[in-house]
Amino acid sequence: MTVEHTITQAPADRYPSRVAQEPSILRRSDPIVYSKWSTDSPLTQEQSSFYERNGYLFLENFFSPAEVEDWKAELKRLQKQYREGEAEHVIREPGSDEVRSIFAVHDHNPVFRGLSAHPKLTAIMEYLLGSKTYIHQSRINFKPGFTGKEFYWHSDFETWHVEDGMPAMRALSCSIALEDNNPYNGPLMVMPGSHNKFVSCVGRTPENHFKQSLRKQEYGVPDQESLTFLAQNYGIDMPVGKAGSVLLFDCNVMHGSASNISPYPRSNVFLVYNSVENRLVRPYSGQQPRPEYIAARGAQ
Amino acid sequence: MTVEHTITQAPADRYPSRVAQEPSILRRSDPIVYSKWSTDSPLTQEQSSFYERNGYLFLENFFSPAEVEDWKAELKRLQKQYREGEAEHVIREPGSDEVRSIFAVHDHNPVFRGLSAHPKLTAIMEYLLGSKTYIHQSRINFKPGFTGKEFYWHSDFETWHVEDGMPAMRALSCSIALEDNNPYNGPLMVMPGSHNKFVSCVGRTPENHFKQSLRKQEYGVPDQESLTFLAQNYGIDMPVGKAGSVLLFDCNVMHGSASNISPYPRSNVFLVYNSVENRLVRPYSGQQPRPEYIAARGAQ
Repeated sequence: MTVEHTITQAPADRYPSRVAQEPSILRRSDPIVYSKWSTDSPLTQEQSSFYERNGYLFLENFFSPAEVEDWKAELKRLQKQYREGEAEHVIREPGSDEVRSIFAVHDHNPVFRGLSAHPKLTAIMEYLLGSKTYIHQSRINFKPGFTGKEFYWHSDFETWHVEDGMPAMRALSCSIALEDNNPYNGPLMVMPGSHNKFVSCVGRTPENHFKQSLRKQEYGVPDQESLTFLAQNYGIDMPVGKAGSVLLFDCNVMHGSASNISPYPRSNVFLVYNSVENRLVRPYSGQQPRPEYIAARGAQ
Repeated sequence: MTVEHTITQAPADRYPSRVAQEPSILRRSDPIVYSKWSTDSPLTQEQSSFYERNGYLFLENFFSPAEVEDWKAELKRLQKQYREGEAEHVIREPGSDEVRSIFAVHDHNPVFRGLSAHPKLTAIMEYLLGSKTYIHQSRINFKPGFTGKEFYWHSDFETWHVEDGMPAMRALSCSIALEDNNPYNGPLMVMPGSHNKFVSCVGRTPENHFKQSLRKQEYGVPDQESLTFLAQNYGIDMPVGKAGSVLLFDCNVMHGSASNISPYPRSNVFLVYNSVENRLVRPYSGQQPRPEYIAARGAQ
């Protein structure tokens, strides 16, 4: 039995990307919030509507300073551990040896496994995605001071769909700030409302390019004309706040971040929840799926 | 007669940099505002005090939209002209051929020569520097959307002192915004109060490195420890506002800017005024001065 046989065939591709010669902007054909709001929901009606309309929601002071301190201590331990030691799931900054990201922390690390299963979080995920969920991807982003480079604009879903075989827009990201986010330390920027459009990108994906793409994205990059269209129609928000804040954002919202030349790191824990009803299928690129530490298939 | 004979010998170096093995932080021994404030001054007392205390001053809506439109039209004409044509005073972005800066616009270009001599500007410069002034350096910074890269932290004076032979801190920069500045398009960041400290940098300056350094600074770069000290003691401000706003900042204030991945350019006209009583002398590096289009000596 070859690996291919274990992968479910992909249904018709509603969001084709990296196949056409010209970029295009398609309409989203999936819901955004998959549950009907009630007074029992873990978000207020206002929060739920904000998320539906803008494709993101910023929850200030969601976790306590004491919780954040525990996670920061663990983060520092890992940063030290991997400063020297190489590991497949550890990605370094472009142009330096600083640790940029550590992947699959929900899998390898008991502290962050606990965080990913935190009932305050999973209740919200199950509400927004309308089902049980599992972690599709997790990582710590260090975004170190001085040397932290930009993350260019992208829709996560574009990559997860093409490279991992995620069929529908029924996943979301949760970024837990372990340091204060300020306008000056390269915070996440979001185009509110852009989750309603799918930017179909040009350029075929080379085999096994993922190692490089985690340092610097070169495929699945939206074209400047589409980005200008989105920015002019939706604007750019920059949600910032204290450590312990949580930013939720839809898998298809256009987002990115500038470089961080400030002395202050902008470390965060990044957890992607996918609906169990949105299992990964064969990647729409037709290529081999990316490894488990980038896109969990086994946990389904 | 060789070029060296035309250059005034440097007085004792009160701000040594790029000579020691270790970085250090020295105290400023020059005034900041060189005139005594009176009701006739072109700044309010509050504005003058703000500048003295913080090393910068942001003047919102200083120029009218009509004036800005004229300058933008000229800027676009120049950008188009130099997109193809090479010229010594035109600097391109690191990693792309986009025009990053055009130098000496006060000299080569009638429109920007007029702007640099604008009475509303020169009155303020003469007040702050306590004498007649001249343009030490001018440039247009395009800071294009999508591809505009960061300017790392630096004190302008450190470079002008070491590489150009500017003896005292009696110069200031004036950045005129030709586009709206937002937190998301890589605006200038300033450490308010840092103009009171001089960060002495390590590393000798290679001969004729300036061509490269205008794309990406590699010498005269403050060390991370000093920057952390300054940020912790002074904080980081990010003055932003509409096109037509003017940012004045002392030659020694620590400043920089992050990359600009937004679709919106952050073009500005950058004029450096030096006191006629602060004429350039032999560069403190002991090397040949940089060319006239980067550091005007003839106009003294």
